[in-house]
Amino acid sequence: MKTIPKIKTLRTELDTLRARGKSIGFVPTMGALHEGHLSLIRRCRKENDITVISIFVNPTQFGPGEDYKSYPRPQEKDLSLAREEDVDIVFVPTVKEMYPQPHRTSIDIKEITGQLCGKTRPGHFEGVATVVAKLFNIVSPQTAYFGQKDYQQTLVVRQLVKDLNLPLKIAVCPIIREKDGLAMSSRNKHLSPKHRREAAVLYQSLKSAKQKILTGERNVKKIIDFIRSTIKNKSSGEIDYVSCVNAADLKPLRKIEGKVLIAVAVGFGKARLIDNILVQTK
Amino acid sequence: MKTIPKIKTLRTELDTLRARGKSIGFVPTMGALHEGHLSLIRRCRKENDITVISIFVNPTQFGPGEDYKSYPRPQEKDLSLAREEDVDIVFVPTVKEMYPQPHRTSIDIKEITGQLCGKTRPGHFEGVATVVAKLFNIVSPQTAYFGQKDYQQTLVVRQLVKDLNLPLKIAVCPIIREKDGLAMSSRNKHLSPKHRREAAVLYQSLKSAKQKILTGERNVKKIIDFIRSTIKNKSSGEIDYVSCVNAADLKPLRKIEGKVLIAVAVGFGKARLIDNILVQTK
Repeated sequence: MKTIPKIKTLRTELDTLRARGKSIGFVPTMGALHEGHLSLIRRCRKENDITVISIFVNPTQFGPGEDYKSYPRPQEKDLSLAREEDVDIVFVPTVKEMYPQPHRTSIDIKEITGQLCGKTRPGHFEGVATVVAKLFNIVSPQTAYFGQKDYQQTLVVRQLVKDLNLPLKIAVCPIIREKDGLAMSSRNKHLSPKHRREAAVLYQSLKSAKQKILTGERNVKKIIDFIRSTIKNKSSGEIDYVSCVNAADLKPLRKIEGKVLIAVAVGFGKARLIDNILVQTK
Repeated sequence: MKTIPKIKTLRTELDTLRARGKSIGFVPTMGALHEGHLSLIRRCRKENDITVISIFVNPTQFGPGEDYKSYPRPQEKDLSLAREEDVDIVFVPTVKEMYPQPHRTSIDIKEITGQLCGKTRPGHFEGVATVVAKLFNIVSPQTAYFGQKDYQQTLVVRQLVKDLNLPLKIAVCPIIREKDGLAMSSRNKHLSPKHRREAAVLYQSLKSAKQKILTGERNVKKIIDFIRSTIKNKSSGEIDYVSCVNAADLKPLRKIEGKVLIAVAVGFGKARLIDNILVQTK
């Protein structure tokens, strides 16, 4: 496994591999790798000759007061996990390598970034879209892999690729969960034992809401109220949002129909957790 | 020469050429080709195996009330000029091909787009940056060629390429002028005979201003006033701006030093003409 901090070195390496006809798959990460990331890496390995992952905690997608500084960076452990998964190349740029000054360009995706996480985190998806475009242009993979846990992010990335005619495919992989249903997240390690126990309520409430829809509930407000009261009753979490929207464009629903996304964001102490579930109605 | 309207067809064609080891050069245009464009095409031909040009009047870089509808589109003549220059591929997408709906992505370049043409034409450079990124991702050239007449645009495109790590080189070619010094432009054909005669004053005033700097003038206001009064005295043009700025970042200068850009935009009837000159001081 090669660990490469420089863009130029990485490109030379990848150009050589491409010239030898190797297909390249890419898993962009912010490190603090967990089973969710590993599932992306495994799928990438299965579908490509060469697996590249990036580990880069991207400052531009954190807002003021967010957890950029405290975001976990267990680099040694990450590299050893990557090695165990037979990753071929780990790209570990510095902030200066990714954003040499003056850096003046940013990518804005309209309509699908103003709600859910985009509402609470203004500028977040602009930071995501910009760094993802940069990484795609640096790695030039055939396919890039993302987790469905960041559902809105997957929509943003798909839109970016389509609108900027980026020559690659996006693969979205299922959410990987702990035994009690909590979605794997690098931020889970910030949870106190009490919050960790309580946090299971997110997925429990989503699953029950899905069940209600599948057995006929079509009232959006009832679904949202049900999830809100479940979370409030079973945890001390602070709800950021509970949303039930069109899964394709995140637009509000008058009634539940088509493909529906139910998404939640809840704060537990310093950790802000997100989760979601898709429901296909007929 | 192949004329290709579809992105997919173009990509397949270019992939085949690339696989055969051909280098690809690219000249993006809005058509209405003149000697300025032809000089870019000739340089591209000299430096690459394959020359691709695009002809696309990009709606997103025109503001409301600008000349998107009346912009000249002499397609047959353009294709015949391209054929004479031995262009290999002309990409002629429709608006729908370039902007399938919903199109939600735009690229913003800060700091160097708020002045000069960016001030008069809000949103213009966002449209330029976005369509150029799209075209670069569609064509994937080794080098793309731009004219220095659109000086601010060349800065924007260079910044875009650097910041988004686009894997190509930008080549900027000199302004091509009519005998009387008027910079070639597709918009010149909108000039009345009287305005056409008067329009030569743009370059005359720029050249004289450069001479003043080279012989010692260091006062920015004096240079600007000189150009303004020259244009006013010798033409009926309506001055949009006369600017004398740092050529690297378009920032205002307190005094003339370093590499300086003098740029003008003047309206003659319906035609808004731009021109510029670079001055290197010691």
